[in-house]
Amino acid sequence: MSIVVSVLKENRGHEKRVALDPEVTKKLVKNDFEVLIEAGAGKLALFADADYEKAGGKIVDRQTALTQGNIVVVVNEPGDDTLAALKSGQIIIGLLSALLVPDKIQRLADAKVTAISCELLPRTVSRSQAMDVLSSQASIAGYKATLLASNLYAKYFPMMITAAGTVKPAKVLVLGTGVAGLQAIGTAKRLGTVVSGYDVRAASKGEVESLGATFLTSTVANGAGTGGYARELTTEEHQAQQAELAGFIAQNDIIITTAQVPGRKPPLLVPQTSVDQAQAGTIFIDLAASDLGGNVASSQPFATVTTAQGALIVGASNLASELSNSASQLFAKNVQSIINAFMVDGAIQIDPTDEVFKGLLATIDGEIINARLRKIMNLPDLAEPKVAEGVH
Amino acid sequence: MSIVVSVLKENRGHEKRVALDPEVTKKLVKNDFEVLIEAGAGKLALFADADYEKAGGKIVDRQTALTQGNIVVVVNEPGDDTLAALKSGQIIIGLLSALLVPDKIQRLADAKVTAISCELLPRTVSRSQAMDVLSSQASIAGYKATLLASNLYAKYFPMMITAAGTVKPAKVLVLGTGVAGLQAIGTAKRLGTVVSGYDVRAASKGEVESLGATFLTSTVANGAGTGGYARELTTEEHQAQQAELAGFIAQNDIIITTAQVPGRKPPLLVPQTSVDQAQAGTIFIDLAASDLGGNVASSQPFATVTTAQGALIVGASNLASELSNSASQLFAKNVQSIINAFMVDGAIQIDPTDEVFKGLLATIDGEIINARLRKIMNLPDLAEPKVAEGVH
Repeated sequence: MSIVVSVLKENRGHEKRVALDPEVTKKLVKNDFEVLIEAGAGKLALFADADYEKAGGKIVDRQTALTQGNIVVVVNEPGDDTLAALKSGQIIIGLLSALLVPDKIQRLADAKVTAISCELLPRTVSRSQAMDVLSSQASIAGYKATLLASNLYAKYFPMMITAAGTVKPAKVLVLGTGVAGLQAIGTAKRLGTVVSGYDVRAASKGEVESLGATFLTSTVANGAGTGGYARELTTEEHQAQQAELAGFIAQNDIIITTAQVPGRKPPLLVPQTSVDQAQAGTIFIDLAASDLGGNVASSQPFATVTTAQGALIVGASNLASELSNSASQLFAKNVQSIINAFMVDGAIQIDPTDEVFKGLLATIDGEIINARLRKIMNLPDLAEPKVAEGVH
Repeated sequence: MSIVVSVLKENRGHEKRVALDPEVTKKLVKNDFEVLIEAGAGKLALFADADYEKAGGKIVDRQTALTQGNIVVVVNEPGDDTLAALKSGQIIIGLLSALLVPDKIQRLADAKVTAISCELLPRTVSRSQAMDVLSSQASIAGYKATLLASNLYAKYFPMMITAAGTVKPAKVLVLGTGVAGLQAIGTAKRLGTVVSGYDVRAASKGEVESLGATFLTSTVANGAGTGGYARELTTEEHQAQQAELAGFIAQNDIIITTAQVPGRKPPLLVPQTSVDQAQAGTIFIDLAASDLGGNVASSQPFATVTTAQGALIVGASNLASELSNSASQLFAKNVQSIINAFMVDGAIQIDPTDEVFKGLLATIDGEIINARLRKIMNLPDLAEPKVAEGVH
């Protein structure tokens, strides 16, 4: 019998993506999977039900997708109906935000559902690159951040030399030069602006400069952390860093902030004084804006705030979703790579001792096995992950 | 006594521009003009009253600006209060839309107000380039059209080669390769798309190709007209052209239309069938959308229409205004060039026999003198324009 992959329709606000697109559906069907798609799941990403059917998928209602899928794929953390429906042996794959919603993960463990929480992927293993959802989505968010800024800005981005005179190019500062930051920088360069990239980690200097931008860093601290992320800074480091940064910020027209630490409150990079002093027309795009806070003082998730001076602060909380079609296309390819990585001779065989899955798995066999998650939940360290039990 | 230049606040909907910026204010003041700015005139273009004062201008109320200005500068056609207030000897400069509102121009003539209607500028005279408001504003609109499309589009514009796979670049078709079209093409190229430019006039082929885009033209008609504009096509030519165009349109993701004929109904370039057949996610940006109609069937001025299939039609009626700061900056430089062109030894001296002013002037000395305008108003041809009377 075929392994069944179910695709759920997202029902969180501000979410237009879908976890699987018709292209990957077609590939899965070709590889003997059966693919069930909840009706309308791809609509906001411009994939019609008919497109999935043409690819060999089957359109079903939500309950059928939830109960029939051996593998259930989603973009975001599951809602209550999903948690209630999933049963022992099923696998759920998505950005489950395991570190932020440990209670939900506990429910999945209790139900013996295997939870693959994509944001837990160890990013230092090279074969995990094709599975890296955070990376593919961050790249899109960075691109979109620059477009959004260019569209809100009341001046030209590029220098313009016209018969009537010359217009100066915009000055763009990108804070955080990870995947999102580099893509924001690249897009800002395309549009002819003068770009600087700032990061406390000097490691990205070469990449920033290879894009034609100026690299700025903190003389205060080298905040390099583990797992590819900058660690959260101490209060004192924050203050010293902010004072130094405030000088850079004041010299720029567009400030795009991208400093996110998965599962934790984002660092405040742009203090209230910088926001208050920003000239009319200045645009802040805060990719870290969330209920936990953001990188820019006063930013609000999914909202745009206008300062007294006339600067704009955009709480750009889920920009990847705005490029719903491309974002879903890449998300689907990441999901496909994850599925491929645990299929052996047409059977599901997840090895929790595997370097990649040791990170990626939140739960397996009724147990929460991710080390970071266990720490957050105050669970004792596992001596050694269990060996896979074969088909789940 | 100094010549007084007054700047009015625009009060038309969807208008954020101002006719004079602080930079040009400063230059005029330096050249012994007195500059009066209606309070708040520059606010939406990010110019504060304090910026004008710093430049040497004086903030006044509207009535003072209207009555004290020897030269009154505006962006758009005057409203009733302006028409009622202006008196003999005053000069008004702006995009007065003379050909569209001949009644208003008649009132100005009756009041012996000199009306310089910037859209009437003869564009074939090389020294008029620096005065060319239509050109500076069209350039901005073209730039903004592409940005707007990129921001509405649910996919990447550039090709993206990522660890998860490759995303194809968007295909952009620009209809009309005048100033706006070329700028739209250039911006689309910056953003890494595959771009084609279509024009019935083969003259722009070289410019389109020099931007790295493919030039497409009509095999049906060479619609070249006079004064730098394509002439309006006949009904038969339209139909044949549209059939040919429909094929091009269907191959593209983004269609930007820029065919405007000043004072006349814009040609319909994208027929209803093309709109109806456009796939979900297709974006039409209609720069010609107006109360007279647009280039795209079903487009609505200042509104976005979603088709049954899920394509978007954006009625981009005043895009220059969206880039209010840069647009105002260039508008102001154009206005400054026009003023410079009629100042002789510190006195206003408009020569209606001058090649440039023969076109630019709608009224002088109580008479409507523009030949195109007289034709529209069914007035007899003037044998020879009057000679200037010196200071007005």
